[in-house]
Amino acid sequence: MAARAIYAPLVCTAALLLAFVVSPSAGLSLDTVREFLTREEDTIVFSLIERARYPLNRPAYDPIHLGDGAGPGRRLNASFAELFIRESEAVQSKAGRYQSLQEIPFFAYRVPFTLAPPYNFTRELYPAAAFVNVNDAIWSMYFNELLPLLAKNGDDGNYAVTVDSDLACLQVLSRRINYGRYVAEVKFRGDQQTYTSLIQAKDRDSLMKLLTSEAQEDVVKRRIEKKATVFGQSITSDGPIKTGVNNSSGTNFKVDPSVVYKLYDQWVIPLTKQVEVEYLLHRLD
Amino acid sequence: MAARAIYAPLVCTAALLLAFVVSPSAGLSLDTVREFLTREEDTIVFSLIERARYPLNRPAYDPIHLGDGAGPGRRLNASFAELFIRESEAVQSKAGRYQSLQEIPFFAYRVPFTLAPPYNFTRELYPAAAFVNVNDAIWSMYFNELLPLLAKNGDDGNYAVTVDSDLACLQVLSRRINYGRYVAEVKFRGDQQTYTSLIQAKDRDSLMKLLTSEAQEDVVKRRIEKKATVFGQSITSDGPIKTGVNNSSGTNFKVDPSVVYKLYDQWVIPLTKQVEVEYLLHRLD
Repeated sequence: MAARAIYAPLVCTAALLLAFVVSPSAGLSLDTVREFLTREEDTIVFSLIERARYPLNRPAYDPIHLGDGAGPGRRLNASFAELFIRESEAVQSKAGRYQSLQEIPFFAYRVPFTLAPPYNFTRELYPAAAFVNVNDAIWSMYFNELLPLLAKNGDDGNYAVTVDSDLACLQVLSRRINYGRYVAEVKFRGDQQTYTSLIQAKDRDSLMKLLTSEAQEDVVKRRIEKKATVFGQSITSDGPIKTGVNNSSGTNFKVDPSVVYKLYDQWVIPLTKQVEVEYLLHRLD
Repeated sequence: MAARAIYAPLVCTAALLLAFVVSPSAGLSLDTVREFLTREEDTIVFSLIERARYPLNRPAYDPIHLGDGAGPGRRLNASFAELFIRESEAVQSKAGRYQSLQEIPFFAYRVPFTLAPPYNFTRELYPAAAFVNVNDAIWSMYFNELLPLLAKNGDDGNYAVTVDSDLACLQVLSRRINYGRYVAEVKFRGDQQTYTSLIQAKDRDSLMKLLTSEAQEDVVKRRIEKKATVFGQSITSDGPIKTGVNNSSGTNFKVDPSVVYKLYDQWVIPLTKQVEVEYLLHRLD
């Protein structure tokens, strides 16, 4: 895949800073942050189940297989998936999706105007740190690690629908993981003195330790695994709901619950904490 | 909303007819059709739950509120939602989504080429009847009837994400309802003599009667309602799964199960049968 620049809306920084100073804490608390993250889990499980409907559809991911060659694909050495996501994100950018700092595109855009009705978003992040994101790591993790665990081998030709469902997975994973910025902002506000000294000392390890709660992480991992068993089961109109708790192989579920556990254990939680640390290191800029 | 033309790929009819004659029944049976429709229910419930995350966001649906006026919106007298869906469908069309007859766009497109890797789709529908769809009725039902039941009043400014979730709902409802073409094809093949005489007599009422099984429809409606209770519940990591069966108000669920029941009872099932009848009336063309 081609290298992608980090999204850095530098031109907006002055305006954001002003908005931030005016209302730095509107609505943001440990409770609202936790509620948001918990609700995102459902969206993540739904999107993984939807992607798992389709086979791997490998031609969509290899530049060699790109269409009739009339388009820009061969010149860019890009896959169908990458071109589709670029074009879809461009439409969404024009539609104002990235006016909300909760949303970060995988490809950077400069659009001269947005079609969307105007809206005055609350700016809850510290402007100089708001750009922090790990979309490159998410992109690579999704296509190289997660997708082969999600999708069965096969090719049914439904490349657009398949890659559209990849985009849905990528978008919610990006929003969930990069929400670490909001988590860090809330934690910083809750103990400014401790965080300030660690940030000034650039003490990455102590920051990571302070942000880590293994007990809480364990609750989250068990909960997402349970969501995968409940949302991925087969439901009949009359029979008992099959919770699938006795099934350890995962074969009766639309997406293997152990894969969802692994997603959180190995990637979502560590990457979120990486975002938190990076955000904090820019929190006093 | 502006009127939209029915998608009629007339130029392709000859090629489709040839492909149909070569393999008229590959893989299509009452079992595969039922399996497809049952699986679509999960996708429908997921997409409704996702739309219900966002408030109504009324400015997205009213041409008066359209952006900065620099775009084509005011000239077309279209809403932000309509423009967003048009542009998204154009990208998906270029990406080959509508090469599969299972997918029908809400707006007609003529794209000179597709970016997608080539794939030789099986043509299971009778070409002269394959164009049948009720997308106009689905569009109107979704925005005028269903959406006000799904989304709470409010405006959080996330118009692009909201309308993107509308598009996901519209796409799966369109695919599910217009799959009536496949249902009708299977039923026609199962009893060609009876159907042929009714089709030749243009006996719409008897066709509708022959296609109706109230017992089967009742199973489907109860099953989709149950899926809404299971997929829309709140899951904790340890506590028992709250199935919500004792809750009749629907307030504890992410989308009210009775709304999902009503969706199937009043719109999905009747519109599907309308598609079946229209398809059959063109089955001997």
